[in-house]
Amino acid sequence: MEVSPLRQVRKEKEAKKTKWVLKLKFGVTWKAIKKASSSTMKLNRFHLTCASSMKQLSLVRVQAEEAVKPIQQAHAKKKASHHVTKSLLSLLQLPYTASDFIDWGDLMTPTKSPKENRSTKWREIHGLHSWDNLLDPLHPWLRREIIKYGEFAQATYDGFDFDPLSEFCGSCRYNRHKLFEELGLTNHGYKFERSHLGQTWSKDSNWMGYVAVSNDEESESIGKRDIVMAWRGTISPTEWFTDLKAILERIGDGKIKVQHGFRSIYKSKSEFTRYNKLSASEQVMEEVNRLIKFYKEKGEEISFTITGHSLGGALALLNAYEASTSIPGLPISVISFGAPRVGNLAFKEKLDEIGVKTLRIVVKQDIVPKFSGFICNNILHKLNFVTKKFNWVYRHVGSQLKLDMFMSPYLKRESDLIGSHNLEIYLHLLDGFLGKQRKFRWNAQRDVALVNKTIDMLIEELRIPKFWYQLPYKGLVLNKHGRWVKPCREPEDVPSPLSVVSENELH
Amino acid sequence: MEVSPLRQVRKEKEAKKTKWVLKLKFGVTWKAIKKASSSTMKLNRFHLTCASSMKQLSLVRVQAEEAVKPIQQAHAKKKASHHVTKSLLSLLQLPYTASDFIDWGDLMTPTKSPKENRSTKWREIHGLHSWDNLLDPLHPWLRREIIKYGEFAQATYDGFDFDPLSEFCGSCRYNRHKLFEELGLTNHGYKFERSHLGQTWSKDSNWMGYVAVSNDEESESIGKRDIVMAWRGTISPTEWFTDLKAILERIGDGKIKVQHGFRSIYKSKSEFTRYNKLSASEQVMEEVNRLIKFYKEKGEEISFTITGHSLGGALALLNAYEASTSIPGLPISVISFGAPRVGNLAFKEKLDEIGVKTLRIVVKQDIVPKFSGFICNNILHKLNFVTKKFNWVYRHVGSQLKLDMFMSPYLKRESDLIGSHNLEIYLHLLDGFLGKQRKFRWNAQRDVALVNKTIDMLIEELRIPKFWYQLPYKGLVLNKHGRWVKPCREPEDVPSPLSVVSENELH
Repeated sequence: MEVSPLRQVRKEKEAKKTKWVLKLKFGVTWKAIKKASSSTMKLNRFHLTCASSMKQLSLVRVQAEEAVKPIQQAHAKKKASHHVTKSLLSLLQLPYTASDFIDWGDLMTPTKSPKENRSTKWREIHGLHSWDNLLDPLHPWLRREIIKYGEFAQATYDGFDFDPLSEFCGSCRYNRHKLFEELGLTNHGYKFERSHLGQTWSKDSNWMGYVAVSNDEESESIGKRDIVMAWRGTISPTEWFTDLKAILERIGDGKIKVQHGFRSIYKSKSEFTRYNKLSASEQVMEEVNRLIKFYKEKGEEISFTITGHSLGGALALLNAYEASTSIPGLPISVISFGAPRVGNLAFKEKLDEIGVKTLRIVVKQDIVPKFSGFICNNILHKLNFVTKKFNWVYRHVGSQLKLDMFMSPYLKRESDLIGSHNLEIYLHLLDGFLGKQRKFRWNAQRDVALVNKTIDMLIEELRIPKFWYQLPYKGLVLNKHGRWVKPCREPEDVPSPLSVVSENELH
Repeated sequence: MEVSPLRQVRKEKEAKKTKWVLKLKFGVTWKAIKKASSSTMKLNRFHLTCASSMKQLSLVRVQAEEAVKPIQQAHAKKKASHHVTKSLLSLLQLPYTASDFIDWGDLMTPTKSPKENRSTKWREIHGLHSWDNLLDPLHPWLRREIIKYGEFAQATYDGFDFDPLSEFCGSCRYNRHKLFEELGLTNHGYKFERSHLGQTWSKDSNWMGYVAVSNDEESESIGKRDIVMAWRGTISPTEWFTDLKAILERIGDGKIKVQHGFRSIYKSKSEFTRYNKLSASEQVMEEVNRLIKFYKEKGEEISFTITGHSLGGALALLNAYEASTSIPGLPISVISFGAPRVGNLAFKEKLDEIGVKTLRIVVKQDIVPKFSGFICNNILHKLNFVTKKFNWVYRHVGSQLKLDMFMSPYLKRESDLIGSHNLEIYLHLLDGFLGKQRKFRWNAQRDVALVNKTIDMLIEELRIPKFWYQLPYKGLVLNKHGRWVKPCREPEDVPSPLSVVSENELH
């Protein structure tokens, strides 16, 4: 390139200045720099500073790149990340920092710690003694189990087609053979058994959850064949509105009453519509009975675990009530997250009596668990000793594990009602929970980035985008003609009776 | 699966009903249906209706799938899409409908029509006669050229790193070897020559555009070696604020004045900052001179086309002024989109005098082209015959091609000021523009979905998501450890002098 003599001189001057700057910055010589350039960060500044001298550029560049390439991929990044992490650490007092969310390849820690064999303790973990002495401090095996079920519940959101522009809005985006794979849940060692309301999908009926069962390997490590029912929670305010019609409705014997809204979702069906002839309740019980029969015949120990978040937690309790009354002797436990109250005292006492074990995970700042009979319960709070026998007061059932958003150093301080109800917040707090009086677990390994999937709750310092979990390009893909189009849904992913288990598919 | 006798009966009944329904729906027999099931739509309904009979399910399913598989991929989809399109067409009176955005594989039409050889007419297309008789009706060759330059301008947005969480915010996301490929612009037959302010990138200086040059094949089809400078427009309101300081500043001889804000962006540099020693102006002219020298020596015909949207259009004019005064005899034309006024009458007259050809594409509803001296120009509008010689009145230069948002049947009717300024709206309207008094081009082939990339302007019926153009998962990727992380930027994509053309890379 032609350069005017004047500018050439200026450049020479600069080049000298540059060398000096580099010396100052890294306290090394030109030669040393090329060796030292193993850190990408340094490398860039190095290039930038040298740039002003066009003459040296190509030369320096070749040398620098040769010097860098071999080590860059691993060693350099380690150094860089290590360096960045340390400095930010001291700044934030956090185990994780922004640099932990930059891909360092093999130097990344996996999201989960290796599995132990939990078979010896499975009945306690499943709630045999109502989790006494397991909650504070939280037993690591129990933590793993709770998070597992929580992720099953989360899958009912992640797999749900929320897109109002989609002709399948309200259905599950993946068929039962693909869901766990698509959502990265295969590591839990469960296989998807049946997608409820998949069969009965229509514009008016939404996908409400699924049944899964532990495979042989997982069954061995947890000590029993575990059947799981995961219920989807509420997504729309309108759904909440239905939920909040807090009228008690009588079920079973005289005294037992549950909230009308929840029960109608669980039980509703219609002979007049084409796809709603079977209620959610009927479909679940049909499938669970099938599985129990199948594994009983093989003489296996079986447990039934029902999980759900928000509305899903309420449905889980109704499901547990029905299962326990219709299948005596089956160990049933409910792991619910941010679930509202469902029934009255008689309902609670009945569940205790028939031995349904319930573990309610609640976040202190989340108002939803306070829902259902919200007002009257608060008014009557002080008169509790008087009212505790009344049928028209909502009661929480089972044991409670209370989490506090302010425990986590990664979450923003301003309390966000909606955010505090988010299931990913629950899972994040669980992952860090050691005990009431203890600090956030320093070696918690669950991916912190997941918190911001559909909310904006992580502190700025982590530099994780907010609301980042959505289909790439909102579902559009660039085809080979250069057109942005919506991919055809695979026939097996189209909600239809195909998702029902047919005879020849039974074990 | 065990079924109660009662339900079995109900199911048998249903199965019968089903057959009847199918007959009614398709007027065919069971056997015929299996053949007819070639349409996915039909297939699903078919499955749905048969489903109620569990007994028949597995059988029917196998048959149906066998019958369908081979033809489904092409033939069926053709039928389906054809059918849907037609029905919706009659509904909407649109050449395109929602079904055109569903991937029908090989049956999709490509985004662009095949290229013609435009070499015979290149001087006219480049503005030799100020595009007389080419604008209304719009000559198809000219339309193709304008859209090409518009897409070069669009690339300065699509390649720009807007992410405030990114350490490289304000830079170009791709290096000059990858940009066109990443943005699907290789089909234009230009190669990326130099990324401006790539060299001088820093937290304080943003990437402002790039120089590209037509390759041999394209040069032959357009009749000359075309050098293109694409200027990025404004992205942030703060940038607009700077632009709107509508103070006229004297350049060149006494009379010529241009808007201070634009000129400062074009000319600003600082000896004190480390990376801003060269202004945008200096970098562009340096590169353009290098290319002209190179191709002149090969005895080729050369044209210089400067394009830009919004602020980019204003910078393009300043660039044209400088180039035309410093490189006599070089055919220079400016294709600007939604550009504001830049200078006074003397500036306009000077550009005319030295033969800079300017084609200003404006959308009637877009207010930005009315910016700069907005108020005074409107006040003095009636006194035009008096004021037209004053130096302090802003003037538009060159020829104008005016588009109307309401021409397009795909755009929402409510006029959206920001939306009407969006460059993709400009390109969409151009693609459909035949002439002032003519309807939207029925066979316009440019991808309509692009309109909604960063705005919400397409009619609901097309079912294209709004604001859909963003990095998948906002830049996070799932690594093999199951962690969501930000990929390390490739060293060659890190803004640094590496993006400068070095001696040994020159042609």
